[in-house]
Amino acid sequence: MRFSSSLATSVACSCLVGQVAAQTFRRLGTCPTLGCVFPPDQADFLPGQYFDIRLEVHAPLNGSEASLVPSGNPDTEFTFTIEKEGGGAVPVTQFFGVEETEIERWNFTYYETLFTQTAETPVFVDVAAKAYRKVALYEPGNYIATLNYYGDSQTVANWTVRAGSNQRKAKNTILFIGDGMAQSFITAARLMAHKIVNGKYQTTLAMDKFPITGIQMTHSIDSFITDSANSATALNTGHKSTVNALGVYADSSPDTFDDPKVETMAEMVQNLLGGGIGIISTAYIADATPAALNAHTRDRGEYAAIVDGFLNGYQNYSWVDWKGPDVLFGGGAEQFYPNEDSFLGRDYYAEFANQGYNVVNNATALAQTPNDERTLGIFTTGNLAVWLDRNIYTDNLNVSETDPFGGEGAAIDQPGLKEMTLKGLEILQTQYADEGFFMMVEAASIDKMMHVLDYDRALTDTLELDDVIRATIEHLTRTGDLADTQIVVTADHGHGFDVMGSVDTVYLQAQDDDRMKRGAVGTYEQSGLSQYVNPNTSAPVGSDKNAVYPNGEVFPNNFDPRYTFLQGACAFPDRRENYIVHKDGPRTPAVPLTEDEDDEDYYANPEDSPGGYIVNGTLPVGAPQGVHSLVDVSVFAMGPCQMDFAGVYNSIDIFFKMADCMGLARYEAPTNEASNSGSSNSTSSNSASSNSASPNSVAPAALNSAAPNSAAPNSAASSNAAQWQTW
Amino acid sequence: MRFSSSLATSVACSCLVGQVAAQTFRRLGTCPTLGCVFPPDQADFLPGQYFDIRLEVHAPLNGSEASLVPSGNPDTEFTFTIEKEGGGAVPVTQFFGVEETEIERWNFTYYETLFTQTAETPVFVDVAAKAYRKVALYEPGNYIATLNYYGDSQTVANWTVRAGSNQRKAKNTILFIGDGMAQSFITAARLMAHKIVNGKYQTTLAMDKFPITGIQMTHSIDSFITDSANSATALNTGHKSTVNALGVYADSSPDTFDDPKVETMAEMVQNLLGGGIGIISTAYIADATPAALNAHTRDRGEYAAIVDGFLNGYQNYSWVDWKGPDVLFGGGAEQFYPNEDSFLGRDYYAEFANQGYNVVNNATALAQTPNDERTLGIFTTGNLAVWLDRNIYTDNLNVSETDPFGGEGAAIDQPGLKEMTLKGLEILQTQYADEGFFMMVEAASIDKMMHVLDYDRALTDTLELDDVIRATIEHLTRTGDLADTQIVVTADHGHGFDVMGSVDTVYLQAQDDDRMKRGAVGTYEQSGLSQYVNPNTSAPVGSDKNAVYPNGEVFPNNFDPRYTFLQGACAFPDRRENYIVHKDGPRTPAVPLTEDEDDEDYYANPEDSPGGYIVNGTLPVGAPQGVHSLVDVSVFAMGPCQMDFAGVYNSIDIFFKMADCMGLARYEAPTNEASNSGSSNSTSSNSASSNSASPNSVAPAALNSAAPNSAAPNSAASSNAAQWQTW
Repeated sequence: MRFSSSLATSVACSCLVGQVAAQTFRRLGTCPTLGCVFPPDQADFLPGQYFDIRLEVHAPLNGSEASLVPSGNPDTEFTFTIEKEGGGAVPVTQFFGVEETEIERWNFTYYETLFTQTAETPVFVDVAAKAYRKVALYEPGNYIATLNYYGDSQTVANWTVRAGSNQRKAKNTILFIGDGMAQSFITAARLMAHKIVNGKYQTTLAMDKFPITGIQMTHSIDSFITDSANSATALNTGHKSTVNALGVYADSSPDTFDDPKVETMAEMVQNLLGGGIGIISTAYIADATPAALNAHTRDRGEYAAIVDGFLNGYQNYSWVDWKGPDVLFGGGAEQFYPNEDSFLGRDYYAEFANQGYNVVNNATALAQTPNDERTLGIFTTGNLAVWLDRNIYTDNLNVSETDPFGGEGAAIDQPGLKEMTLKGLEILQTQYADEGFFMMVEAASIDKMMHVLDYDRALTDTLELDDVIRATIEHLTRTGDLADTQIVVTADHGHGFDVMGSVDTVYLQAQDDDRMKRGAVGTYEQSGLSQYVNPNTSAPVGSDKNAVYPNGEVFPNNFDPRYTFLQGACAFPDRRENYIVHKDGPRTPAVPLTEDEDDEDYYANPEDSPGGYIVNGTLPVGAPQGVHSLVDVSVFAMGPCQMDFAGVYNSIDIFFKMADCMGLARYEAPTNEASNSGSSNSTSSNSASSNSASPNSVAPAALNSAAPNSAAPNSAASSNAAQWQTW
Repeated sequence: MRFSSSLATSVACSCLVGQVAAQTFRRLGTCPTLGCVFPPDQADFLPGQYFDIRLEVHAPLNGSEASLVPSGNPDTEFTFTIEKEGGGAVPVTQFFGVEETEIERWNFTYYETLFTQTAETPVFVDVAAKAYRKVALYEPGNYIATLNYYGDSQTVANWTVRAGSNQRKAKNTILFIGDGMAQSFITAARLMAHKIVNGKYQTTLAMDKFPITGIQMTHSIDSFITDSANSATALNTGHKSTVNALGVYADSSPDTFDDPKVETMAEMVQNLLGGGIGIISTAYIADATPAALNAHTRDRGEYAAIVDGFLNGYQNYSWVDWKGPDVLFGGGAEQFYPNEDSFLGRDYYAEFANQGYNVVNNATALAQTPNDERTLGIFTTGNLAVWLDRNIYTDNLNVSETDPFGGEGAAIDQPGLKEMTLKGLEILQTQYADEGFFMMVEAASIDKMMHVLDYDRALTDTLELDDVIRATIEHLTRTGDLADTQIVVTADHGHGFDVMGSVDTVYLQAQDDDRMKRGAVGTYEQSGLSQYVNPNTSAPVGSDKNAVYPNGEVFPNNFDPRYTFLQGACAFPDRRENYIVHKDGPRTPAVPLTEDEDDEDYYANPEDSPGGYIVNGTLPVGAPQGVHSLVDVSVFAMGPCQMDFAGVYNSIDIFFKMADCMGLARYEAPTNEASNSGSSNSTSSNSASSNSASPNSVAPAALNSAAPNSAAPNSAASSNAAQWQTW
């Protein structure tokens, strides 16, 4: 990565893709047997939701499962039937009225354990597969999908079509995602900015005022810790997936763009309701959470293709229409100006403009652009600067080569999440006054800053999200749209983080050794009160003693108090802690101690947190950052269907609740679409390498990947370039 | 402490009282000025809730505030007025119709910072004070209480009487408290015991099935981290307090039993409704959470007096009636059999029996005792054994001197929380079929095990609580009482804890050095699935592949899998981690390396977690354990008032919601009680040393404390015996 300054730390780290040397390596996550069905057992569908079917039969040639393969070759004569419960099993082609497809073949390798990885003895797996594209189930109930292979072996997948509503209750849906935002972040952010008198908050968060709260389980389909790609997939499609996968179930094929797709909320709102689509993030816009609105690839790292997909959709196989979002605001200019990181080297500012988009590249232009056109706003390379750097430590905005046109300069005139969100709202309200809209707003750097253990920046970006929510509600109240809008605020996963007390930073710095420095920590009654809103300290911005800024924003008025939070992660790389805000830009807690680019042995950064004490890590030494955690995250809901969001539920249920409120269920196949006569269509091109030749639909994996048979998700071939997974 | 075995670890640690060398030392937490009013500014009351008033004027004789004192002496001529908003300020005696009381005098010392503590230069504070006892406000609205002192100085306290309901909606209230149970514990416990297939839980927790969830803020009145005493006070009285305080606001007087009291839910249910009271805990029964139902002292460590208070109430000053609980089940036999740890050396088994209680001391007797008498059940010294030791590693029950009669032997026949809870329910249902009841059930060792970083025991006790909730709901359904019962499940605070992935324990043990061992950790897709419910492993108890035991209990069926959770605390002492269940009993993560009893320099216990890697601590080196954290905790509610529990609120609000549902507001002073004519009574004995002479009402502090002027909450005199605060 070419971002060298501290501000770009999280950008650089978020672009790494790969695996970490660790445990529970598996042949293919959702396929414990040798016969794989996607969607797998226990998949839920909205009535009429389009999806692809992928079938695979595996033949491990060595390793612990080799003896299970009768002939040493994968069964190419497998059959697949579907039964509407009680209706009898019928062949898939008959059930959906689709044509039979051809067998595909590939192979891949994987390691069974850390020991075999160390010994470099992978398992080779030969695969026979088929796919059926763009089918749908319209009748609620249970379906039994059965793959018969190797003679008497069966893999049974029980599918459920939920009885969703086709009666629309909400005109608009706004989904706010605080990436990584565990409730502990919200608690700490509240304490940081809101004043307490004798145990009573004098002001509270906008989130605290929501009438209904719920609890969301975030785990992946095949591992109990998720990344932001498959958690966003769950929220946008109702289907859990695998780490790195967007809008697909991850298969084992070499092509990362042929995995079986599932239809997204945004695709349905656009196609069924004619509604507007807004995608807004403080991340580079090809990042997983914004990408999940319409991307379909198991590799979130295909940024260039994802940006092309925002504009042109995914046409390499038969799939739903996509007209592009009406609002697309964020960072990631490197996928837009013509260069090696943009799709086929093209100028995507021009591509969007050619399709009628207004294009803006700074906060001033954003404020001035009209509301009556579709609008692309890309304001920097990489991620947008965080709130603390845009508002308090503004020298940190001077990051070279962040210019959104690829120049040497810095992107100084960046909007905040609030400016993007309110402008996006105005555009959608102007153009979709009747049809309504679905808007996703992501506060991405809550997660990115927590990864680098920059607690203060994670918490202030949490406060920024809260401020955006407050301003959004005020705006909708002014325009009279609040009652017709369902607002859902949640996270896609948590981080193990909490505040355990406070630190006398002056005492800590005055001590000579690490064990003495730990005496600066105060817990329980010695934690005292938050000093970040101390009215007796000088306030860098704003001056109200409750830290309420002139327009109603609530942020701390002292970011550098003597008594700071004792805060920390529950799993971490080596690092040094002095519990003082990082004034020079986002933190880099751990670095290799050599100049060798391949050095993956991370130690506490000697330049980080001067005067603090060393804490050795609990994560693998190749980990320069913290990681996601298991904890359930909170859901805050308001609007016509708010009661549906009470209680405890799985991430996928949020999709079904939101879709239900928008009335997105389809109980009949569309009659106005010839290709959908019967109950499905399947104009598939099922060879992994025979992608459509349309310029806008080339699957980049076919362009960039190695030989078709050499790449796979758990490929041993790529494991010697193992890199730390950071999102 | 005389408990020497590993099982008693948490008991021993929980008996330490004192301060840790740390920051934000304050003169008196809720009193930033020199004039103190208790209840302080922003206090909320249920209409008719009894409370005491304490006024203090401070004269610091040295330190940073000495110059603020006009004469060098505390003002003894201070005045105090109360105004119902808009009604004009009137003297307190006139407002409540109480007699004037006499000035009390004392002094105390405290340190202003860690630096002055190190230099042993305390501040001396001289105090003039008054108290008015057992008053109440019956009319909802705002009140302005004003203390005038030092001529023109004022301390204004705004009090609010909330418009609570006196219409009863629920017959019964059951409050389940998972001590320390952050949502991260619940998430991890769910994953440990409930099987997932392709991202869908096949079974879920009883807590997951509650219709309404909410979010509770847990902070103290004067510090942002709470202990279990003042958080339980908030839940039981609607008044936040100070660390260690039970049912009082903490004043600065030497007597720990003269602090201003507030009426508790249990007192109201008993006196206003004639309802039954059940108090059940897996802790020693004098521990803070059970004690808070009717204790009134700022020192939770006064265990002997608390046990006397369970039976006899608090009569040293005029206070509400108390007839004793109908069910009192837990540990802590050392306060019952006659010995130096029982109140005045008495036999409290006999004291309870003399007042008509059935007394049982083991699980067998508990099961057989009749339901038609009030019942005391004390089953061990210290805390009850945790679920994992009672059910899986049963050799650990052999802890000498846990015999409930003070013998040498072990308390082997201990009931679980479920046996205690279901028996308690039957007793209350039998005796209060018409009047209804209030029962508090605490899973105490969730917290105690997390303090010692024994994650597996904390999580299995979380599962035990969930099983008790499930069984309670089933029982109430059978008896037809579910619809009339409000059930509230919550925690009193959290711990910074989470699960971040998994650990290949075989790989970890096979590596030679600590940095290599960290390579055994798997995150994201390498976290895999929970191995604790692996159907392919041998099951020590139960055998169902979903780990559902014969009576519907859901626990893991393999506690010692190869792939375990990567779990950890966010602040911690030095310790070693091998991520393997501690089979020999609860963990002791850190110990002093010398035999010196006064050694408070804790290092990783050389005998703990063999083969693991060392993690150095972030807490002061005097900390042998983890600490409480800031994170909001979840609330799960079902019953007639369940909708009141949606959203985000403060701990005290739970009291108001529960009391509202029980109709406990009193809009008029009782007319059948002569002493309450007018709006209050105040038959106070206001000298700190002139306690009533009734044998059952002696305040032990008066017996045991040093000279009245030498002890105080932040006393410098006791700080050289500073000990680690552990609950």
